[in-house]
Amino acid sequence: MALIKHNWNLPFNIIRCSHVECTVKDLDESRRFYVDIMGMIETERTKDTLYLRCLEEKNHHSYVLKQGEKSEVLALGFKVAFDKDLDLLHKHFTDLKLPADWVTKHGEERTLAVRTPMGIPVEFHARQTRVPTMMREFSKYKGLSPLRFDHINCFTPNCQSTYEFFVQELGFRLTEYTLTEKGDMWAAWTHRKGNVHDMAMTNGKGPRLHHTGIWTAGVNNIIHLLDVMASEGYVENIERGPGRHGISNAFFLYILDPDGHRLEPFTCDYLTVDPDWEPLGWDLRDPKRQTLWGAPAPQSWFEHGSTFRGVEVRESDIDSNPIIGQYEDHA
Amino acid sequence: MALIKHNWNLPFNIIRCSHVECTVKDLDESRRFYVDIMGMIETERTKDTLYLRCLEEKNHHSYVLKQGEKSEVLALGFKVAFDKDLDLLHKHFTDLKLPADWVTKHGEERTLAVRTPMGIPVEFHARQTRVPTMMREFSKYKGLSPLRFDHINCFTPNCQSTYEFFVQELGFRLTEYTLTEKGDMWAAWTHRKGNVHDMAMTNGKGPRLHHTGIWTAGVNNIIHLLDVMASEGYVENIERGPGRHGISNAFFLYILDPDGHRLEPFTCDYLTVDPDWEPLGWDLRDPKRQTLWGAPAPQSWFEHGSTFRGVEVRESDIDSNPIIGQYEDHA
Amino acid sequence: MALIKHNWNLPFNIIRCSHVECTVKDLDESRRFYVDIMGMIETERTKDTLYLRCLEEKNHHSYVLKQGEKSEVLALGFKVAFDKDLDLLHKHFTDLKLPADWVTKHGEERTLAVRTPMGIPVEFHARQTRVPTMMREFSKYKGLSPLRFDHINCFTPNCQSTYEFFVQELGFRLTEYTLTEKGDMWAAWTHRKGNVHDMAMTNGKGPRLHHTGIWTAGVNNIIHLLDVMASEGYVENIERGPGRHGISNAFFLYILDPDGHRLEPFTCDYLTVDPDWEPLGWDLRDPKRQTLWGAPAPQSWFEHGSTFRGVEVRESDIDSNPIIGQYEDHA
Amino acid sequence: MALIKHNWNLPFNIIRCSHVECTVKDLDESRRFYVDIMGMIETERTKDTLYLRCLEEKNHHSYVLKQGEKSEVLALGFKVAFDKDLDLLHKHFTDLKLPADWVTKHGEERTLAVRTPMGIPVEFHARQTRVPTMMREFSKYKGLSPLRFDHINCFTPNCQSTYEFFVQELGFRLTEYTLTEKGDMWAAWTHRKGNVHDMAMTNGKGPRLHHTGIWTAGVNNIIHLLDVMASEGYVENIERGPGRHGISNAFFLYILDPDGHRLEPFTCDYLTVDPDWEPLGWDLRDPKRQTLWGAPAPQSWFEHGSTFRGVEVRESDIDSNPIIGQYEDHA
Repeated sequence: MALIKHNWNLPFNIIRCSHVECTVKDLDESRRFYVDIMGMIETERTKDTLYLRCLEEKNHHSYVLKQGEKSEVLALGFKVAFDKDLDLLHKHFTDLKLPADWVTKHGEERTLAVRTPMGIPVEFHARQTRVPTMMREFSKYKGLSPLRFDHINCFTPNCQSTYEFFVQELGFRLTEYTLTEKGDMWAAWTHRKGNVHDMAMTNGKGPRLHHTGIWTAGVNNIIHLLDVMASEGYVENIERGPGRHGISNAFFLYILDPDGHRLEPFTCDYLTVDPDWEPLGWDLRDPKRQTLWGAPAPQSWFEHGSTFRGVEVRESDIDSNPIIGQYEDHA
Repeated sequence: MALIKHNWNLPFNIIRCSHVECTVKDLDESRRFYVDIMGMIETERTKDTLYLRCLEEKNHHSYVLKQGEKSEVLALGFKVAFDKDLDLLHKHFTDLKLPADWVTKHGEERTLAVRTPMGIPVEFHARQTRVPTMMREFSKYKGLSPLRFDHINCFTPNCQSTYEFFVQELGFRLTEYTLTEKGDMWAAWTHRKGNVHDMAMTNGKGPRLHHTGIWTAGVNNIIHLLDVMASEGYVENIERGPGRHGISNAFFLYILDPDGHRLEPFTCDYLTVDPDWEPLGWDLRDPKRQTLWGAPAPQSWFEHGSTFRGVEVRESDIDSNPIIGQYEDHA
Repeated sequence: MALIKHNWNLPFNIIRCSHVECTVKDLDESRRFYVDIMGMIETERTKDTLYLRCLEEKNHHSYVLKQGEKSEVLALGFKVAFDKDLDLLHKHFTDLKLPADWVTKHGEERTLAVRTPMGIPVEFHARQTRVPTMMREFSKYKGLSPLRFDHINCFTPNCQSTYEFFVQELGFRLTEYTLTEKGDMWAAWTHRKGNVHDMAMTNGKGPRLHHTGIWTAGVNNIIHLLDVMASEGYVENIERGPGRHGISNAFFLYILDPDGHRLEPFTCDYLTVDPDWEPLGWDLRDPKRQTLWGAPAPQSWFEHGSTFRGVEVRESDIDSNPIIGQYEDHA
Repeated sequence: MALIKHNWNLPFNIIRCSHVECTVKDLDESRRFYVDIMGMIETERTKDTLYLRCLEEKNHHSYVLKQGEKSEVLALGFKVAFDKDLDLLHKHFTDLKLPADWVTKHGEERTLAVRTPMGIPVEFHARQTRVPTMMREFSKYKGLSPLRFDHINCFTPNCQSTYEFFVQELGFRLTEYTLTEKGDMWAAWTHRKGNVHDMAMTNGKGPRLHHTGIWTAGVNNIIHLLDVMASEGYVENIERGPGRHGISNAFFLYILDPDGHRLEPFTCDYLTVDPDWEPLGWDLRDPKRQTLWGAPAPQSWFEHGSTFRGVEVRESDIDSNPIIGQYEDHA
């Protein structure tokens, strides 16, 4: 049986997903894409690292881009409520016999680096250096006018077990999902902060990062980003959309940064703070699930993802293949 | 000293504000305004009561309109996490020697009716009857295309003490505020669900309800509501806006229902789930506070409010008068 | 040489394209699509004909849908300035040895039915019955909130000669175009009313109607139509988009009515009233031409069109094939 | 009788209003306002003059700002179809015994400077220097994202006679109007290019320029301009709106440049190319006329205007006073 009960009894409190840290091959290229085109704010640039945030954000970084030979993901960042939660999480992962180490991260007070059973590198922190919000500096709004980092979406070779880990061991709550014909989880959207997701996972070759999501205030901001990308030579970086997801109700766009890391600018999901919110199940064969308006996603969207440094990628354990099915629906 | 620390140690968990219950003089008139013009969904109509909800909502009601001789507010509704929280709140209010009674409300499992020290009638519940969300039924979107009930704003004759009660005794967290010259709280925005507010309070003749806020997906929905109201004979019900608040960053509109109950359709505030979020203080003399774009609010917006049934309205205890000040700024 | 000079010396004055008349298999189905989903206004319904107009329009019809066994186009309608222009056009077509007959059309004072050399059935009128504009009746805005009929786009087996006819003999002015490698016109956008086009023509199997264009006020109206179509069972009728055309700068969508007649809801083109406006030429290999954002049009968009009743369809005279080229670009 | 017939028999062809030339006290200040805040394109800057255009425009200038001691308007610019129209207009004005002189204007081939009977300085040209459109350079869109110069609105001490001059002697066509109780023209909207107006005139102390109008693609662009103005210190330059006009159906905003020249960014009017378009008359007492949503315009909007250099301003000849009436309606 795929659906499990929510775990309300964990002693620590993960507040939300907060950032991603990845490598890029050319910091100047990345700066042009994230700052000049997308409209993010550069908090700080060191010799080999670019710290970026969105317009609304008061924390030091939501994107950490490090100069590297290969394009990889170094860590997925989550914020906890209080400093003590870091210690509780350290004990929790250690008890689970999972890696858990204290590391030093620029712009964060204390950082706990762990691995999920699937090998995904996750980092927890309670406090980042405070920086000014640019939310009321409207002349800085450009490109997407990105307001805040919203969610993380990963491929996993076993969605059922990854879903169970995030719900049972970390306290995430399920909002939407699709099951395979055999009743296993095919894709799951789970949250901590009260909207559709902080962490989503889909079956597939993994673990790999599928994309990070960025909230903007309205449909027009996404259309404007498309126009800017097209006129500035980034047509090839537009992968899918714009469109409306059945899942999450979001108006979305998928784009690729110069290193192939995928981003999802979106607007409009919904509130899920009620503990009695019933997760919404989708039939894998329902074409509205992926795109309410019917246009199929390109093959690359199902296949491409960013690898995690030093983490082996393996094929999915699940034998059904909904992707083929979906393509057939649209053929 | 006006600012107090947040209270993280309360045993119960209030999730969010959920609804308002008030009297209206003509249910058909109210139905025309809320359903035909604003676009709310009628969940149920009994002989003397109209139960309404917004498009996204799966709960039985966010507006309960009861036929009555006078336009009054009967209760402000809040949702708690679990059924046991109701018992804990019953004990909490009883210990505080405040009224706390179990009442029967259609569409709710158990309902606890209490009074704040100021006399505001508040009702808590853990579960409402589940009804279908209309979020994906886009042909039902009209008027404002209201997505969800968002917040409550009240006049109180002593904002400092009301603010302290909601923070210390109920666990609300401060996001934005203005102080009087003497350092007392003049207006406070406090939340539970992770955006700018569930409950705001402003100094003034009270206690009275100033308005309830309704979230919509974008600027265009608010402009369309204005156009619809104008062409359907509701020009007089448009009180203030559209505009951009400095406070909360919301794009807002204030309208009056046929009984004078004020509503604030708005879009775009921000995320406040971080426990280390620092409340933003505004200078009472800063004109951007009320309206970023400078247009003064009409006198009625400062003076008019809905009374609570059976609750005496008294003058503000605070002797400074920022309203005059603001008007002078714009003269 | 493909480009010819504009003809400023014609004695008559065609004001704009005004309407299309076509057959549909089920008037009730068509009414549901055009009125309930798209939001057009029903001016009148007779036993076998539905007369529709857009919200802004004060004339009797911009879409005339007649019950028929087959889905065909009966006529493309154009409005002339004055009644005398009809007589001048009658003489003009007769002098050119082209069919020109006076016919009776419900809702029009006098109607002149002609054929272009390619066989396209065109009807001219100077006056339609006046009906009220719904532009200020905002509660009638729904679906697309269609404001006005904007343009006609046809396949023609010889774009060069069709283009020359509309420019030399009817006074249309070229705004944008693409040429084949041999320098012949591949596609041409020509206007009378002062925006990008009243009549566009593209090389291909024809003559056939490719689509009619409908103006709406903003991006959000097109997104809302997509959401409504998706939730009301019209996903299969969404053919292409939304997107931004390089050509015309329009934000567009292509949809098919229940009989396969294609419609293009769009917003935002530009003013072309200046006589010294220089037509903009596009390279057929420029992918921004069709879609600024890079997504290729589906094969159906290049191939499907509505036939004109009684007009033989023949293959294009032009031997180059830019469609293949474009597909290769995107493969 | 206030309404006169349109004059279809003039030998020349005025295409549209094209630009305004005025003096400003500080070119750097003006550049900051028009270019940095509003988002216009600087075509050229000479020692004492700034030539600006909007994003869509291919002509050299739509705003000519000249360094001067006083803030004045030097000329209202209109474009004619062909060079010969300039000669025909020269003869026309000379025959009418009105001033008509050939002048030299940077960026224009030939320029004819005339005076209307009321003394308004008007300049006609057929060709400006061609410059590139920025319409497809979306990264240049900012502030208002102004697409094109749209219209001119003037105070005149005798609206009836000014209206008659523009219609009878220059071929403008009436689209909307309001009459005084005695049946004289109080305000008139007249066009050449096929939308609501190129030239509007309102009774009042004059002649003076009330405002120039600028077209933008959507509501969101106007909201963004407001946010940018507010956050960049231009709150005092926001005079009225945003709102919806009954007249013209435009979504509007009125702002003042640093010298007090008024601008109206707006979006969405309608097509008026049909010769049988019937002008829409408004009752002066209809509050929807000015603002569909009911908010009264501030006193300054009725009183303030830019004077024309060397042209005496006199009181209105009309004795009725609709402004008082309107204010009473809203008191």
